[in-house]
Amino acid sequence: MTSANDALSTASAPVAELPAVLGALHDPVRLEMVRRLSNAGAPVRCSALYDVINKSTATHHFKILREAGVIERLTIDGQTYQRLRVDALERAVPGLLPAVVGAANEAVGE
Amino acid sequence: MTSANDALSTASAPVAELPAVLGALHDPVRLEMVRRLSNAGAPVRCSALYDVINKSTATHHFKILREAGVIERLTIDGQTYQRLRVDALERAVPGLLPAVVGAANEAVGE
Repeated sequence: MTSANDALSTASAPVAELPAVLGALHDPVRLEMVRRLSNAGAPVRCSALYDVINKSTATHHFKILREAGVIERLTIDGQTYQRLRVDALERAVPGLLPAVVGAANEAVGE
Repeated sequence: MTSANDALSTASAPVAELPAVLGALHDPVRLEMVRRLSNAGAPVRCSALYDVINKSTATHHFKILREAGVIERLTIDGQTYQRLRVDALERAVPGLLPAVVGAANEAVGE
């Protein structure tokens, strides 16, 4: 029950205004989280979305992304996952996510 | 001579890394400057690119946009203009500018 509620509550949040979305994406740590989520094309365990920061810092960054409507949190079998809100973002700012992820992949040579 | 040198020096600056470009765009004042420049499709007098801020604040925002490689400064007949670096941005982050300007226009009902 808890997991279903978690998924529902975050999924229904609106995507934020454009400045907040860009503000969420412009931080290098968050940009990398979004890049990995986009490339995965599926929900990803939190710990697979960052490398050199600690968990509380990661939680802070997830919160900013979530509040901007960029990602949502899912609980599956007691594990927390993050999911990129691809469709909601595409409706809110068409073309932004592909452009950002494309350039981010380019920058890391992927 | 001065105007030609100004144009040349700013035009040759590289577009910054993606986080810096997104950081330059995420501020509402700078986003509006970019939106107006994009819609104008031509260099625009500085004073036509903002409304409620003072000149020194505007200068600060222009500097951030310029250092990110988003705009360049031109001097024409002793007047200062800003120009959006559309082609350089499109090469650096394909699709970003149309996506951002499109959503920004949408947000203000244009």
